[in-house]
This record gives sequence, structure tokens and C-alpha cells, in this order.
Amino acid sequence: MNGYELEDLPAEEIERLTERATALAESVRGLIQTTVVTEVGDADLDEAIAHIRAAQLLLSRKTLPGSFGVRFNSDGTRRTWGNAVTGTRNPVAPPVVLAHDGDRTWSEVTMGPAYEGPPGLVHGGVLAAILDQVLGSAAEHAGAPGMTGTLTVRYRHGTPLGPIRAEAWLDRREGVKTFTMGRIIAAGAVTAEAEGVFILPRWARGAAAESLRPGVGDA
Amino acid sequence: MNGYELEDLPAEEIERLTERATALAESVRGLIQTTVVTEVGDADLDEAIAHIRAAQLLLSRKTLPGSFGVRFNSDGTRRTWGNAVTGTRNPVAPPVVLAHDGDRTWSEVTMGPAYEGPPGLVHGGVLAAILDQVLGSAAEHAGAPGMTGTLTVRYRHGTPLGPIRAEAWLDRREGVKTFTMGRIIAAGAVTAEAEGVFILPRWARGAAAESLRPGVGDA
Repeated sequence: MNGYELEDLPAEEIERLTERATALAESVRGLIQTTVVTEVGDADLDEAIAHIRAAQLLLSRKTLPGSFGVRFNSDGTRRTWGNAVTGTRNPVAPPVVLAHDGDRTWSEVTMGPAYEGPPGLVHGGVLAAILDQVLGSAAEHAGAPGMTGTLTVRYRHGTPLGPIRAEAWLDRREGVKTFTMGRIIAAGAVTAEAEGVFILPRWARGAAAESLRPGVGDA
Repeated sequence: MNGYELEDLPAEEIERLTERATALAESVRGLIQTTVVTEVGDADLDEAIAHIRAAQLLLSRKTLPGSFGVRFNSDGTRRTWGNAVTGTRNPVAPPVVLAHDGDRTWSEVTMGPAYEGPPGLVHGGVLAAILDQVLGSAAEHAGAPGMTGTLTVRYRHGTPLGPIRAEAWLDRREGVKTFTMGRIIAAGAVTAEAEGVFILPRWARGAAAESLRPGVGDA
């Protein structure tokens, strides 16, 4: 098993699953944010932990054998719900919801206290993770999907916790390499700039690689 | 308020708080991992969500007004529990626990399904976040704490989910800039290499900056 699964689910079933996955993940995201800032005493803490363990026990009754991977539908759509940055059902992910506007790929997302690095600021590594995803998506949007080869982030200013915008665009293509650029904008200023080199997977070379498809060797 | 707080807590109280924070965060980390892979039906899901909301309500009874920031103790130790990569009480953080061995700063940590990018592999952005933290800690360990100026990550191979080792060391210092290098090792191979430039905060320049201290301007 290589983590890619082809599932032929009807659109309404996917919609229903998405709704359920979102409800669950959103409840856990709320819990995460509160966990970081809670100041309650031992009694409340113990009761909260008991609830959390009960929830985990219920969710453990039936699980996937490994990680979520990528699920493909016969209509060509795919679900990457486990993705650490964009995953709908991954509470670690903000999640980053990607949009495309002309040649620009972007996302607007709010960074809560769970994404803190220096006091009051977003962790530089979290920004790097978001940039990796947005720059990679820009490469794919330009018709050249790939694995990250190199990612460079230049930090210009601290990025305050709160709403941020990440955006990326194609710079150029050179053979199997696609170069994209991007940046983080927060409170009206560019706080970080990035360059990414994405490498076309071996299995997609020589083919019309218009979208990521199930296959091996793309690591 | 700049997010740095000086707290004069006795050592045993800090130990007790650490134990409680760890118990809470670990329960939420377990819940996160299960959330990503659960396949239970609606009844279990609804009951789990009810428990999660109950837990959040309990923890919400008393919270910090903003993010966790950095708490200093009079003995010079500090707590960065909210940190998205190393935070003891931040369930988003694996957490990365840093160690120093001679001139090397390192961490060994297990990447569960919540840190997935490509199927079965760690998200490249998560690796960048860990490298940012470990390279920055290596700069601080070398006596030159700083904010990340530039971070470059070169991905050599996919990094399988599971145990990884991140390590970093000082390369050189040039004025207010400290250059560190590092890498990720997984399943016996170097899967990513990184270079970081860390900038000494303005407030620490000209002073004996042996450790990060409360102050403004370090953004």
C-alpha cells in the first residue's frame, strides 16, 4: 500500500463525510487553542482530561491502519484530509484553504495562540510550512506538480498572531524543476518572502501531468 | 504587554505545573492522532464531539488573555509552553525536546499521522518548522541567540512517518549574524539538509547576550 486510495464515492456522500470531518476537527481545534491558554485548577483539569480520553476511546473504535494518505474519487477530485497544513480533518492544520486567482495561489487564515513562536508572533517554522504548501500548490496550478526540492524563507519582520495572507506564483520552469515565489502578508506588511523549487515526480515525467495522480515513486 | 512575563515561582511549583500541563497536552495529542485516522460512525462521532466540547468548556473557565508567550523564573529558567514546535502544553507541537551534546543540538521525535504531507511521508513544511527550531537553538547554544533571518531547506528524500532525528550545529558568526546548519535523519538516511541565518536582536547587541532575556524589539 502506497497511501493512495481510489474511492468511488458519490458526491453527496463525500459532502456528508466532509461535513462530519469538519465538525470533528473544528471541535478539536477549539480544544487545542484553549489547552494552550487555560489557567483552570486541578479539578476542572482532571474532568477535562477525562472527557478528552473518553472522546479518544470512542474515536478509536474503528480507525485506518496507517495514516490518511490521499483518497481519489472517480470524478478526479481528491481528499488530502490528513495533511498537516491543509487537512480538513487534521486538527494540527489551521487548516490552510487554498484558492487560485489568475496566476496567483493564495490563502487567508487566522493564526491562533497554538501557532506561536516568539511571544505574540507566529512561529517562523509554521510560516515556512504554510509557504511550502502554497508555493507547491502554485507549481501544481501552473501545471507542474512536484515534491519540494528546496525551500528558502526570508523573514523580514515578526508576523503577529491573527489573520495572515499567504500567496505564491510561478516564477519559471526549467526541465523537471518548477520555481515559484511567495510571501506572507500580515497587518499590511510583507513579513516573509519565499522561493521554492519543486521537482516533477519521476512517474509523471514525459506524461501530460495536469494533476497529481495515484502512483509510486513520487517521494 | 510584550508577551514576556517574569514569574517568581518555586521550583516544586513549576514541576507540578509542568506535570499537569504535560498530562493535559498529551491527552489532546492522543486525541489529535485518533481524529486523523478515525472511521467510526455518526453515533460515536457525535458522542466524541460532545465530550470534546465539554472539555473545552471546562478549560475555558479561566484562560490567559492572549497567547502563552514566554515566562521567566528568577532562577533564569524559562517556559515557552505555547511554542508551536517545542511547547510542552501546546498539542500542535510534537513536542520537540531539545538536547545539546558537545557542539551539537538535537532532538529525536516521532512523527505520527497528524504530521503527514505526501502519503506516508512527513510534511516538508513540518520538517522545515522543526529545523527552524533546532537550528535556532544551535545558534543560541553557541552564545548567539537570534530571530530567524533566512531558512533554507533542501529535501533529499521523502521522510517516512515514524521516528526522526533532527540535529544542528554552528557554522560561523559574522557580526550580528549567526550561521547554523542542520539535517533530518530518518530510517538511516539524511532526508533533508538546512542552513539558517539568525540575527541577534537589537536589544541584545553590545551586551553579553548569553541567553534570551525579557525585552522588547526582538521581533
